Amino acid sequence: MNIIEHVINQLAKLPGLGKKSASRIVYYLLKSPDSKTESLANSLLTLKKSLKACGNCGNFSETDPCHICQNQARDRSTICVVENAKDIYTIEATHLHQGLYHVLGGVISPLSGVGPNNIRINELIARIKNTMIKEIIIATNPTVEGDTTALYLAKVLKGAGVTVTRLALGLPVGGDLEYADKLTLSQALKGRIKIE
Amino acid sequence: MNIIEHVINQLAKLPGLGKKSASRIVYYLLKSPDSKTESLANSLLTLKKSLKACGNCGNFSETDPCHICQNQARDRSTICVVENAKDIYTIEATHLHQGLYHVLGGVISPLSGVGPNNIRINELIARIKNTMIKEIIIATNPTVEGDTTALYLAKVLKGAGVTVTRLALGLPVGGDLEYADKLTLSQALKGRIKIE
Repeated sequence: MNIIEHVINQLAKLPGLGKKSASRIVYYLLKSPDSKTESLANSLLTLKKSLKACGNCGNFSETDPCHICQNQARDRSTICVVENAKDIYTIEATHLHQGLYHVLGGVISPLSGVGPNNIRINELIARIKNTMIKEIIIATNPTVEGDTTALYLAKVLKGAGVTVTRLALGLPVGGDLEYADKLTLSQALKGRIKIE
Repeated sequence: MNIIEHVINQLAKLPGLGKKSASRIVYYLLKSPDSKTESLANSLLTLKKSLKACGNCGNFSETDPCHICQNQARDRSTICVVENAKDIYTIEATHLHQGLYHVLGGVISPLSGVGPNNIRINELIARIKNTMIKEIIIATNPTVEGDTTALYLAKVLKGAGVTVTRLALGLPVGGDLEYADKLTLSQALKGRIKIE
């Protein structure tokens, strides 16, 4: 196997890439100036070297605690609970959540052998005990596992003196009723909001 | 801009990747062992350092001439002419072409200011003069520019004593008549083959 095939195989293992897209990237890099590939390779190395998990929320960051946990301008009474660090990036892009985050690092999934103790639930409970948290926004994915985890969290946090909320389910903005699946439409109906 | 966003932006510039797929890759790498990212980064660096264009056919290779041009087991009387080095990889995967290759490095495209002298046509003519080439298989893409280039090549090579052929146009295997576009269907009709 030559070097081209070797790199294609390595790239093809990344999520979202297959052999075809990987080979497009390889030939694109081969045609580009050396500096482009060097800078990309170096960035990848720096990425792993300079980032660690924040001991507080679990976000990837160059500092520990991370820049969000350190930021005194943020609302320290609200924690948004997400499955993965990646979700923080997605939610931050909305600029709507001003509070802190907590990364579970997975969801409860008995079929895959993941129980409540395998994800960072105890760390969350500890955080709530030590600080003045008022609201926990559960932002797990709207999947069976995400729902299970959300319900489990709500149960565990009952009596802790915090409001537990969950992201709304419903029609995606710009969507079309015709293409909405039955479950989503049911949720949109159940969660209907009064127009004031 | 932090390092995560920086790497996402760099990855998002690669062909076939956008911000979403790039961020998936970055978080995937962050979760994977360090060795995986290091090995990928090093491969990318090696890729650019160890590969050069073959002086003969234009393929990317660790050696010059490339392993295909050097391979004495290959049919040295046939040259398959492709737009880009990437196409060699695609055609090699069929294991059907036993001859050599010639990379044009582009196609004639007056709109983009690419004329016959901007791609490796003169190099092809030189190769034909010096060796015992019997057939030139033109494997440019079935696009306006690819067609123009194929016709130009056929005209230029007339009288050079070589047979000039072109890849067949028609229905894709496993396709459905219903979904074939008119042009493809016309080509499939024109190029119909007698069943013996």
